[in-house]
Amino acid sequence: MYASLDIGGTKIAGALVDERGSVVHRAELPTPARESTHRMARTVDTVIDTLSTSPAWGAVRGVGIASAGPVDTAAGTVSPVNIPAWRDFPLVASVRDHPMLLTDLKPVLLGDAVAMAAAEHWLGAARGVDNALCMVVSTGVGGGYVLDGRLRHGPSGNAGHIGHISVGIDGPPCACGGRGCVEGYASGTAIARYAVQTGWSPESGSQASAAAVAASARKGDERALAAYDRSARALAAAIAGSAALMEIEVAVIGGGVAQAGETLFTPLRRHLRAFAVLDFVRGLEVRPAALARDAGLVGAAAAARQRFHDVGGPPLSVAHEPGA
Amino acid sequence: MYASLDIGGTKIAGALVDERGSVVHRAELPTPARESTHRMARTVDTVIDTLSTSPAWGAVRGVGIASAGPVDTAAGTVSPVNIPAWRDFPLVASVRDHPMLLTDLKPVLLGDAVAMAAAEHWLGAARGVDNALCMVVSTGVGGGYVLDGRLRHGPSGNAGHIGHISVGIDGPPCACGGRGCVEGYASGTAIARYAVQTGWSPESGSQASAAAVAASARKGDERALAAYDRSARALAAAIAGSAALMEIEVAVIGGGVAQAGETLFTPLRRHLRAFAVLDFVRGLEVRPAALARDAGLVGAAAAARQRFHDVGGPPLSVAHEPGA
Repeated sequence: MYASLDIGGTKIAGALVDERGSVVHRAELPTPARESTHRMARTVDTVIDTLSTSPAWGAVRGVGIASAGPVDTAAGTVSPVNIPAWRDFPLVASVRDHPMLLTDLKPVLLGDAVAMAAAEHWLGAARGVDNALCMVVSTGVGGGYVLDGRLRHGPSGNAGHIGHISVGIDGPPCACGGRGCVEGYASGTAIARYAVQTGWSPESGSQASAAAVAASARKGDERALAAYDRSARALAAAIAGSAALMEIEVAVIGGGVAQAGETLFTPLRRHLRAFAVLDFVRGLEVRPAALARDAGLVGAAAAARQRFHDVGGPPLSVAHEPGA
Repeated sequence: MYASLDIGGTKIAGALVDERGSVVHRAELPTPARESTHRMARTVDTVIDTLSTSPAWGAVRGVGIASAGPVDTAAGTVSPVNIPAWRDFPLVASVRDHPMLLTDLKPVLLGDAVAMAAAEHWLGAARGVDNALCMVVSTGVGGGYVLDGRLRHGPSGNAGHIGHISVGIDGPPCACGGRGCVEGYASGTAIARYAVQTGWSPESGSQASAAAVAASARKGDERALAAYDRSARALAAAIAGSAALMEIEVAVIGGGVAQAGETLFTPLRRHLRAFAVLDFVRGLEVRPAALARDAGLVGAAAAARQRFHDVGGPPLSVAHEPGA
């Protein structure tokens, strides 16, 4: 059994996940993102308190934490963009110090996109694939890599930032300070913005969102189709580039924009044939993500599980007081 | 002691390299690139014959082979673009079957750019760096990665093909079939071509080469400077992208174009500040390669050494007949 936490801008979720990846217990609270540092930490503690009431708690062998980024896994700190209450907050130490956890049980921290990659590799669309890129295409664009059968998150846990690689050195400036970033073409925000710029408008009463653009595209609206095509082309260049650099065999795409289904995947596969032309990358496959809602929790559990199987651990790492 | 071979379009080199990376014995023959498959193989055999006359031969604990690509390390085959005599040639089996090698000594095969990365990591500009990209910028552009302290060459040995990632989805078509590839902006060929296109011409009697463009740039020629700036900008985008994806800390640049020195490195560092803007990649350093001539031989030896230290091996893997 593994305990996992998923820290996001709107909710803090917790779960107990068994060795096969099933969620056996669940807890969730809204994120007090704009309140005090301490209030945030107390909310995480309360989620852990709730998990610890489960009879399964005594079987916990590891703790994984997925958090909105940036994270610093080396320092054990997080500074989530959408949680202003936390800047360089020592989340790993804070969770480790929870009274229901023994101090020898060091939690594993990972960014949310890396957690999604861990989950898809364990149980989802990248299962059995030794070299995979998993991307979240949503308001922003993020990702994580599995290389040679293992999660490769880099020294500070930030590897996989595929939203901010340039696929257009003469392209539009990005909020990050760079230019021609994948996110500037491919994110849901970019799709809606480009569609509006080219004259598309949402049906009366609806917002100019990527979902609204997708709805128009399904009805054959040329401008809506062009906005998805532009997103798909940037994704294809980034995915093909990843394959040339890392010999990935599968790219998994999740997040809100992937919900557009074939509106995204059909042009994506077409553009991939144009960009992935080296012999050793031609077999590259693109797949929609298989795990949606629980990817963060399951991925954090997967990372805790990997550490447990790597280094072993005491038979009982967690204090469980029956009736507590 | 490690035996290494470096198979290139003009020469086939061999060396015995000791545990500290010194070349203690050397052999070299011209590559019969356009003769028969068999004639090529015989030439490799002759290089090994020569190495085996060294008194150090009996101490060989592993064999590494660097080859011009493409290679397929899983199959043990090579199809070097500039050696038409070899297509899917089983080089590993051919070397393993050499009478002076015991059959239990399986040679390690790697592409030449990956070998360069191995060499720079072992003894050169990436020494002591756990996460590095090493690039060869020459007629073409190639590379290799060290991740978490180890060479990461991918399942077929082709990871690191940084010359054919797109940094310009609206950029010029590439011979590979893609568009906006790094090589199309950054290679020596691209530098000379762009300089000529913008009105630069070499001094009378010299060729329109990247070296000639560099000579003009040093004299302040604006078009020559612009050609190097364009190369540097594409390299900067690719290097910053690599850092965002893989959290590399150092990028090492070798090959003929790097010989231009500050003509390349000054604009490269400037453009890198524009593209490498995420917090965790800001510390990224660019360094010139430290090993030139022997990088292939030393890198192949490094890979053989890594395998020997990973899996161990018999105390004497090589038949040595004194006086043979």
